[in-house]
Amino acid sequence: MVFLHLRQRTNSVQALMQITEGQVSKQMVKWAGSLAVESIVLVEGTVKQSPELIKSATIDDIEIHVSELWLLAGVEGRLPFSFEDAGRSETAPEVEGQFNRVLLDTRLNNRVFDLRAMTNHAIFKLQHAIGDLFRSYLNSNGFIEIHSPKLQGAATESGASVFKVDYFKGNAYLAQSPQLPKQMAIAADFERVYEIGPVFRAEDSNTHRHLTEFVGLDLEMAIEEHYHEVRDLLDGMLKAIFRGLKEQYANEIATVGRQFEAEEFKWRDGPEGTLILTFKEAVDLLVEDGVGRDILDDINTENEKRLGRIVKAKYDTDYFIIDKFPLALRPFYTMPDPEDPSLSNSYDFFMRGEEILSGAQRIHDPEFLSQQMRAKGVDPESMKGYVDGFRIGCPPHGGGGIGLERVLMLFLKLNNIRRASLFPRDPKRLEP
Amino acid sequence: MVFLHLRQRTNSVQALMQITEGQVSKQMVKWAGSLAVESIVLVEGTVKQSPELIKSATIDDIEIHVSELWLLAGVEGRLPFSFEDAGRSETAPEVEGQFNRVLLDTRLNNRVFDLRAMTNHAIFKLQHAIGDLFRSYLNSNGFIEIHSPKLQGAATESGASVFKVDYFKGNAYLAQSPQLPKQMAIAADFERVYEIGPVFRAEDSNTHRHLTEFVGLDLEMAIEEHYHEVRDLLDGMLKAIFRGLKEQYANEIATVGRQFEAEEFKWRDGPEGTLILTFKEAVDLLVEDGVGRDILDDINTENEKRLGRIVKAKYDTDYFIIDKFPLALRPFYTMPDPEDPSLSNSYDFFMRGEEILSGAQRIHDPEFLSQQMRAKGVDPESMKGYVDGFRIGCPPHGGGGIGLERVLMLFLKLNNIRRASLFPRDPKRLEP
Repeated sequence: MVFLHLRQRTNSVQALMQITEGQVSKQMVKWAGSLAVESIVLVEGTVKQSPELIKSATIDDIEIHVSELWLLAGVEGRLPFSFEDAGRSETAPEVEGQFNRVLLDTRLNNRVFDLRAMTNHAIFKLQHAIGDLFRSYLNSNGFIEIHSPKLQGAATESGASVFKVDYFKGNAYLAQSPQLPKQMAIAADFERVYEIGPVFRAEDSNTHRHLTEFVGLDLEMAIEEHYHEVRDLLDGMLKAIFRGLKEQYANEIATVGRQFEAEEFKWRDGPEGTLILTFKEAVDLLVEDGVGRDILDDINTENEKRLGRIVKAKYDTDYFIIDKFPLALRPFYTMPDPEDPSLSNSYDFFMRGEEILSGAQRIHDPEFLSQQMRAKGVDPESMKGYVDGFRIGCPPHGGGGIGLERVLMLFLKLNNIRRASLFPRDPKRLEP
Repeated sequence: MVFLHLRQRTNSVQALMQITEGQVSKQMVKWAGSLAVESIVLVEGTVKQSPELIKSATIDDIEIHVSELWLLAGVEGRLPFSFEDAGRSETAPEVEGQFNRVLLDTRLNNRVFDLRAMTNHAIFKLQHAIGDLFRSYLNSNGFIEIHSPKLQGAATESGASVFKVDYFKGNAYLAQSPQLPKQMAIAADFERVYEIGPVFRAEDSNTHRHLTEFVGLDLEMAIEEHYHEVRDLLDGMLKAIFRGLKEQYANEIATVGRQFEAEEFKWRDGPEGTLILTFKEAVDLLVEDGVGRDILDDINTENEKRLGRIVKAKYDTDYFIIDKFPLALRPFYTMPDPEDPSLSNSYDFFMRGEEILSGAQRIHDPEFLSQQMRAKGVDPESMKGYVDGFRIGCPPHGGGGIGLERVLMLFLKLNNIRRASLFPRDPKRLEP
């Protein structure tokens, strides 16, 4: 008799094969016992109640009595690390001679095998879920999905880092966001649009939260009376995502939690609503906590995290919004606050003290837009197609863009964005 | 009193504003009457039964009695062409002095305005619908959505035309399909995956059916016993899309039909199943029709269309499959037919005589894969990460890739793929 540990996606079950007259031979059992760990097999058998709970399997109350077993694909050579090590808790102490922690780089160099870990299956199931919840919320709010080109004729958006592409006899540039096309869709009367697609940033920074290519969840919508319509829709959409994950994917969250220990992600879902601070109120909280006001013209990454801790302690939430950023900190297409032109109708959203969404009301008047472009050193002629899009009349509108991998990383507290990307890309990694 | 023609997305309605004591002044009515065509307004009013059917509006039995009207955005300068001309039937004869057909290039140069045409609103609603139907069919068949990187370290897939990107101090290449990553996801036990994302082809061909960037609907799945499991799932998925469009989007299809006259798209949805021809049977049909067998080693675009007409006449369907292509015509990763190694376990799907989907069973054994790569002049070392992905064992698998814009163009018979892309890209067009 031989015991087999069978795994499929995020579940495992025990199987056993025993010599049975006319069905399973002694050779067969011996051969099955000799199969390499991680072999891919197809089995036929009978599902039986197991005599006792099987602790090593996720399905612990049944076992499969195998009558036929086919080897679909074997394993060539040595595995880069063991499957058990791949899924071990990141906080468990290493035990010499028993196991070594598998470093992230080793994992990413052997990403296909690393992805087999149940933790990773759960992570990418949750990534799929976020996309689904995003779309389903927006579909039921009158949005349509668009697909905008990633190849652009000009390096747009205030000269930030952009990848250049050889395009036949000239050049093209990879879109840093669908900002311009989604606004043009609004000018074309589409009213409410969203897009899920890759965005590219040629920033040479190897941090835990930057990728050179990531998945953007972007939306743009016409405003009827006030830009808070957009801010509140974005808020409703994110809460729908959090709620959907918690209610429909508790198993996957628990699976990830066994490797990446984390306090459960908290947000306010009651009638009091999401915590919304103005930029000024956020600065005041930091000053109260001992940060010098003189360095708070902008809030840097370190102070964002500090603010996250202050907010968590004071309001018991991992999710909040900062509204009304100083205009100087935002791109040229941002609408100034009509009551105080040093401020703007813009907002960032935060999870566990890190930014996951940036958005604003945009300027919809072509003359004012050209003026703001020149003020930021952008030549309106260099983006003529975009500016001209507003000349046929464009309603007031706003939107925002979310980094899919950031939401996933921060909801689960994975600590490195590469873990939230199937095959991550950074300045040093283009493979596998 | 003044009449206003109001439009929102694919609907229009008649409104009227009349002088009303204490509510609507004479000046107000005069001003409303002077607004430029295509101005964007916000109105408040009362919905009333209209005294007679209003032929010029899509909602013909009511009218709005306006009490307040706000101009949100006006029109600057002259419109590039008239809104009426933008939506006129492509087959209606031109009338000198009354209207000129708006050329596709003129439309694309003024795409934002062109997109306002109701036909275009309907086209992109249907584009959205195809994506939704694709996902919903696959989600309910155990697939998960993945996002694979578009930036690749090597120019993959048998040296076909690929765009080169400046990547910091080196180079990257834009993915021509998610072929390799989706197969690696299968090797990582994901079993069934799909992706919707941009794919890039650096082919210098300005045909009616090629774009340099289009949206790929790709899927890959493990096979239990036979590659026809994949072919049949793809077939089921496409029929679910056709059915969903016809049943849920009849209005949008009719709207497009008023500009682009087309026979209704026909497919077999009964128990007889989709027409599946082998490559050999397809060749025989062409030979019977008078094409010389000597030029039919491959079926070129012209003969594909001819075959479409033959099939339509003989089987009354616009949709069919060709199975079992000669191995020599397919990429290196294609599985040969075990019964005849000159053939392969591969298929193309056709709509109205044009290819919309290409797919196959893939080779899952790393040694055999390396051998086939060398036979096609690809160095296995140049794609080491991909080949190594199979060394830890990978189940038999297959899949396919669909061009979203092609399905949309052919279902509606738009005659040019640029009409099925929001902001199309071809060798000569990177703007807007």
